[in-house]
Amino acid sequence: MIKVIVIGPLKSKFIINGVNQYLKWVQPYHKTELIQINLSGNLNNMTAKEYKDKDYKKFSKYISQDTINIVLDERGKLISSIEFSKKIESFYLSGKKHINFFIGGPLGHDKRMYNHANLLLGLSKMTFTHEMAVLLTLEQIYRANKIIKNEKYHY
Amino acid sequence: MIKVIVIGPLKSKFIINGVNQYLKWVQPYHKTELIQINLSGNLNNMTAKEYKDKDYKKFSKYISQDTINIVLDERGKLISSIEFSKKIESFYLSGKKHINFFIGGPLGHDKRMYNHANLLLGLSKMTFTHEMAVLLTLEQIYRANKIIKNEKYHY
Repeated sequence: MIKVIVIGPLKSKFIINGVNQYLKWVQPYHKTELIQINLSGNLNNMTAKEYKDKDYKKFSKYISQDTINIVLDERGKLISSIEFSKKIESFYLSGKKHINFFIGGPLGHDKRMYNHANLLLGLSKMTFTHEMAVLLTLEQIYRANKIIKNEKYHY
Repeated sequence: MIKVIVIGPLKSKFIINGVNQYLKWVQPYHKTELIQINLSGNLNNMTAKEYKDKDYKKFSKYISQDTINIVLDERGKLISSIEFSKKIESFYLSGKKHINFFIGGPLGHDKRMYNHANLLLGLSKMTFTHEMAVLLTLEQIYRANKIIKNEKYHY
């Protein structure tokens, strides 16, 4: 099972529609769900360290011996869709029950997240909105499944 | 004036909605439009060379002494959003009237396009749908304008 876990709710309607489309398309290949976690409160009322600590604690609930942890990060490794599909295939074969993608909040990840990362992944050198990162991640998961099955990508 | 010129019409509703949102948001900064060019026919009835030649001829109409040509390509340069905004700013200051983004058809660009490129740009090492490339390009154009104006990005 794949979980895309994101801090901060999706708001833009076109993103929600696109995300729902890919969530639907990907199910026949691999059970996949999106988990939206509430923002950790008002940044004016706490330090960045406190904020990231709250985010980390929320993510921690999804980290165990039985999870593969893919941490999305601006400083993450940039790989092609083919390379990404090979990673996903190896994770499917790893025997672990859960593959979790972690998309951080407005301040990014607490450092401790990096220690858990089986893959520290970058989508682009460019910065996109946090919502767009969710959409792109789901598109790449769908694409990876198509590549693994050797199917032509739906254009 | 910025034109994002793409071969092959946008089809997915969520993409069209997202594209229209960014087109609307970007106008106060810089006049920007999307030009959708029809596909060059059925690939079964012509060679790849013929097909790309047709695409090239369509794009050529938008190339002149008065255009900055940004060619999107999988082998293009990967740059950060900050670097991209600096390029855009320098293009604004270049004295050229038009900044054109060229997003190729299903076979990619004819080689001759590369000779015209003021910037050969890659969005990611990953492959996205052609529709998603249009959406990401418009998002980055909007973001670049915000960066140039030193405004906080709308999240």
